[in-house]
Amino acid sequence: MAEDASRKTPEQRAGMTDLERLRHSCAHVLATGILKIWPEAQFAAGPPVENGFYYDLELDHRISPEDFEKIEAEMKKVVKENQVFERSVVNREEALHMAEEGRLAALSERSAPSKFKLDIIRGIPEGEEITLYRNGDFTDLCAGPHVMRTGNIGAFKLTSVASAYYKGDERNPQLQRIYGTAFKTRAELDAYFEMLEEAKKRDHRKLGKELQLFTFDAEDVGPGLPLWLPNGTVLIEELEKLAKETEFHAGYQRVRTPHLARESLYLTSGHLPYYQESMFPPMEISEEGGEGRAVKYYLKAMNCPHHHKLFAAVPRSYRDLPLRLAEYGTCYRYEQSGELFGLMRVRSMQMNDAHIYCTREQFEAEFNAVNELYLKYFKIFGLDKYLMRFSTHDPAKLGEKFVNEPELWKETEEMVRSVLVKSGIAFVEIPNEAAFYGPKIDAQVWSAIGREFTFATNQVDFSVPKRFGLKYKTREGGFETPLCIHRAPLGTHERSIGFLIEHFAGAFPTWLAPEQVRVLPISEKHTAYARQITEMLRKEEIRAGCDESPDKIGAKIRLAQIEKVSYMLVLGAREEAANLVAVRSRKRGDEGALSAEEFLTRLKREIANREL
Amino acid sequence: MAEDASRKTPEQRAGMTDLERLRHSCAHVLATGILKIWPEAQFAAGPPVENGFYYDLELDHRISPEDFEKIEAEMKKVVKENQVFERSVVNREEALHMAEEGRLAALSERSAPSKFKLDIIRGIPEGEEITLYRNGDFTDLCAGPHVMRTGNIGAFKLTSVASAYYKGDERNPQLQRIYGTAFKTRAELDAYFEMLEEAKKRDHRKLGKELQLFTFDAEDVGPGLPLWLPNGTVLIEELEKLAKETEFHAGYQRVRTPHLARESLYLTSGHLPYYQESMFPPMEISEEGGEGRAVKYYLKAMNCPHHHKLFAAVPRSYRDLPLRLAEYGTCYRYEQSGELFGLMRVRSMQMNDAHIYCTREQFEAEFNAVNELYLKYFKIFGLDKYLMRFSTHDPAKLGEKFVNEPELWKETEEMVRSVLVKSGIAFVEIPNEAAFYGPKIDAQVWSAIGREFTFATNQVDFSVPKRFGLKYKTREGGFETPLCIHRAPLGTHERSIGFLIEHFAGAFPTWLAPEQVRVLPISEKHTAYARQITEMLRKEEIRAGCDESPDKIGAKIRLAQIEKVSYMLVLGAREEAANLVAVRSRKRGDEGALSAEEFLTRLKREIANREL
Repeated sequence: MAEDASRKTPEQRAGMTDLERLRHSCAHVLATGILKIWPEAQFAAGPPVENGFYYDLELDHRISPEDFEKIEAEMKKVVKENQVFERSVVNREEALHMAEEGRLAALSERSAPSKFKLDIIRGIPEGEEITLYRNGDFTDLCAGPHVMRTGNIGAFKLTSVASAYYKGDERNPQLQRIYGTAFKTRAELDAYFEMLEEAKKRDHRKLGKELQLFTFDAEDVGPGLPLWLPNGTVLIEELEKLAKETEFHAGYQRVRTPHLARESLYLTSGHLPYYQESMFPPMEISEEGGEGRAVKYYLKAMNCPHHHKLFAAVPRSYRDLPLRLAEYGTCYRYEQSGELFGLMRVRSMQMNDAHIYCTREQFEAEFNAVNELYLKYFKIFGLDKYLMRFSTHDPAKLGEKFVNEPELWKETEEMVRSVLVKSGIAFVEIPNEAAFYGPKIDAQVWSAIGREFTFATNQVDFSVPKRFGLKYKTREGGFETPLCIHRAPLGTHERSIGFLIEHFAGAFPTWLAPEQVRVLPISEKHTAYARQITEMLRKEEIRAGCDESPDKIGAKIRLAQIEKVSYMLVLGAREEAANLVAVRSRKRGDEGALSAEEFLTRLKREIANREL
Repeated sequence: MAEDASRKTPEQRAGMTDLERLRHSCAHVLATGILKIWPEAQFAAGPPVENGFYYDLELDHRISPEDFEKIEAEMKKVVKENQVFERSVVNREEALHMAEEGRLAALSERSAPSKFKLDIIRGIPEGEEITLYRNGDFTDLCAGPHVMRTGNIGAFKLTSVASAYYKGDERNPQLQRIYGTAFKTRAELDAYFEMLEEAKKRDHRKLGKELQLFTFDAEDVGPGLPLWLPNGTVLIEELEKLAKETEFHAGYQRVRTPHLARESLYLTSGHLPYYQESMFPPMEISEEGGEGRAVKYYLKAMNCPHHHKLFAAVPRSYRDLPLRLAEYGTCYRYEQSGELFGLMRVRSMQMNDAHIYCTREQFEAEFNAVNELYLKYFKIFGLDKYLMRFSTHDPAKLGEKFVNEPELWKETEEMVRSVLVKSGIAFVEIPNEAAFYGPKIDAQVWSAIGREFTFATNQVDFSVPKRFGLKYKTREGGFETPLCIHRAPLGTHERSIGFLIEHFAGAFPTWLAPEQVRVLPISEKHTAYARQITEMLRKEEIRAGCDESPDKIGAKIRLAQIEKVSYMLVLGAREEAANLVAVRSRKRGDEGALSAEEFLTRLKREIANREL
């Protein structure tokens, strides 16, 4: 505990949320429980983590999930006893002495030295306060904070066991890491495990395979480079269509740029050398412009430098601003193999990217319009819960972590803040987390099962346009450098689609669904009628298929349900005779018989409105 | 002459078109004319070339365009004399003797040796026939053929002078190359120069700049890598929309694949090592899969290998065939710097590419459907003149130039031929020009000003699916390898758009036009009304702009005309009072006043029908 806690600044410790404090306390309870069974256990660090906590320990007995019940029983006793968490301050000598006597992270009766705690105390800088927390007869070296009493821990559960090197260094001894989670109430705990269960069912990698959305071929194509099957491509193209339509009305103009550029472009932009390790290595060619050396070409990791070149390609005047250049550009970033994860962390990124060049006077309106775009998209996807994280600069780090333009920082941050306040969008301000060249906003959203996700980033840039020498002619005939807003409200297709697969559990709204309608003739006799209906729908650009297999109608319906087709049209003798279609909605079930025209009219309205 | 002619096979010589024969004869007349003025001139080679002919010569006097009139006057005399072209066969000794005496490519009176002709004769293989052609007192070493008499040359003109090394080798002496052209009639000659004049006005590089369609940044991005400005991007996206719509109805499914892949993919496909010099060099990375060496990633030069991977990603059955996978994939080819030319020869190629996997039984219908797609596209662009060049294999070169599958060659060529004959499309068959892995079709089209262009290629592939081990389950439960049709009826965007710019002289049909409507208020008083009309059009996804400059209405109209906007709506007091718009079509001029709704209805119909 001390180890992790001591690394944090007092503000960060104070910033521990209620839930983190609760989980942190539960780690102490875990240690207490384990010591009741194995008093010889040696504990190292035990911080709260995302969704729970862990504690690392050394013990000859190999703890397995079979032991969890026994440990949890001991922990329950500790909670039931409602022990007080008691804080005390000690000096270095006292702390070292206690560790040597084996009285830290230990029940009172143990005698072997608390070896990891000893090591941790030795690492605490001189002059820093050393605190202990005690509950019952268990005392630990710990910076806190904790809940008042063990009884405040409403519900907990141990979840898994793994191994980890002490301090994460493989030259150190290997420890056992016990993971658990805790909540204020039993209901919250249950909901969490239900969510996990649901998330497993909704895993985008699993559904991606089942629904034939995408595939990987690490060996011949390369890891982290998804190949999109027809069903997944429908998702991409519908998102693109949505963005193009929306952004046409918002006054964006579309552009296209190549996927690579010469080294010199990235020297100007500053991507080289600062961003080089996230880029694919260069292609080296002997050609003109290399001054005797090979010319290096890099795959683009971002679209901005190319867009800046398009801004500069034509003389620009204040009349042309705001100039909003949008592109579906695929960028390539060399993420480390260990970090690749399904669609969530990939090396090829299809991005709905845009750069808005504007004057300072136009900034507020433009920034607000971008935020409104976000909200529009969130609404379309049924994302009710979202939060804007507004990252600002730290005046103490100007010229170091942040570009040295104190006035511009103040001015733009004030503009962004004012836009956020006026628009009423929920936001939190996070100091010292801005980008190098300007403040930024991250849009956090929560999926239908409550999982948090950073949907997209939106940045102000008042530095790079200058590096590229971008200028526009002012009304007065002078020249000024525009501000630039980087924005990508749909993020990258890969991540967004990964998120949407989970959010919709693969059952996409009709406008997004790869297969919108499947026509199911009850028997072979109705094949001709089924084909005629299918053809009629496809003529109207409905993604309709026809199941002509010899299977029974029940099997056909089951298959369409598994494949998450939005509508099934069941066609038998009755329907054919009356020239009707029996409609079965995936979401709402049987909807009765309609004329094909009536069904088509309803369907087209649902699609045009992008209904959920 | 002999030099070039002797390099050709007798069939190729026989294959000289009437016009080439005429131009070839005119080269002799050119030599005759020059010798009348400068009897000391030494001639080398003088073949017909695209659009004309040239003759290379050595002469101390530097011929300049100022000399053309004088030379043409001498040539006219030769034509007027209506000299007979007289062929004779000589043996090697006679030929060498005549050259030594300076009687080849010379008027009868000259005495210095004909040095280049001497060298050419020495290069003619033993046993090959040596022929001379004589007109009047000029005799030349020449394989022919020629027109009957100089009087058959209806009209000619010298066009330019350049320099060229003898035999194209820079270690040889530098010669003067005089270019000219000739036609059967004066009217044809005049039409040709009018076409050239028009082509200059329509030059896609000139219009690309004027209409702000695209730009290049050779230094920072790289040569041959166009960056598309908003106006050009409209062209691309409208073409994509056209293709997606058309191909949805033709049963294609869209896919997306990354722009790069590992070396192993291109070893399987055979691109490496055979195609390597047309590919960008590899990016080398130390990662898993390299067996200790760096893994090489290549930018894709073609989409096929990725599509084959998508075919293989899912178990396929005969029920899935034909499977038509289409992609707007950008490919990268490293064309040599000297070959780059505007949009016509670039290094990044946006391709409307598709691969159709089918059984042999399905082939004929699929191939026919592809041809029909071509015709559909040609019709949309108003290309009335087209010709399919059907390239077949040579049975003598099986296992060498062509994959050794004699039965498959016969079978597929017969199928292709039968499709072409049945469909009634004009085609010519060209033996020995097929691709390695199957027969191919090139679609030749002619622009509005009569320029020929290869729009796209369409190939049958019965080899590569086997290399990739592609299989489908047959109805009987066995496994077979599908045939694959490679097709890209719109070619690459870059070349097609380059061609369409010339074809339409930058004045695109409304559905393609970057700006479809420009609203022109007569004075500032009507700005509000103009904005309202513009807004109303943009709501309906019309690409409409509004000219709010303080310019006079005449200037506004001129500008819109120069910028080739399809429609102008002129709005003054009268229009505003009556709630009308005065319509001016770029093509048809003044069209009177209409209600905005009526104009919109007509416009939307014109766009939906993609009217020319």
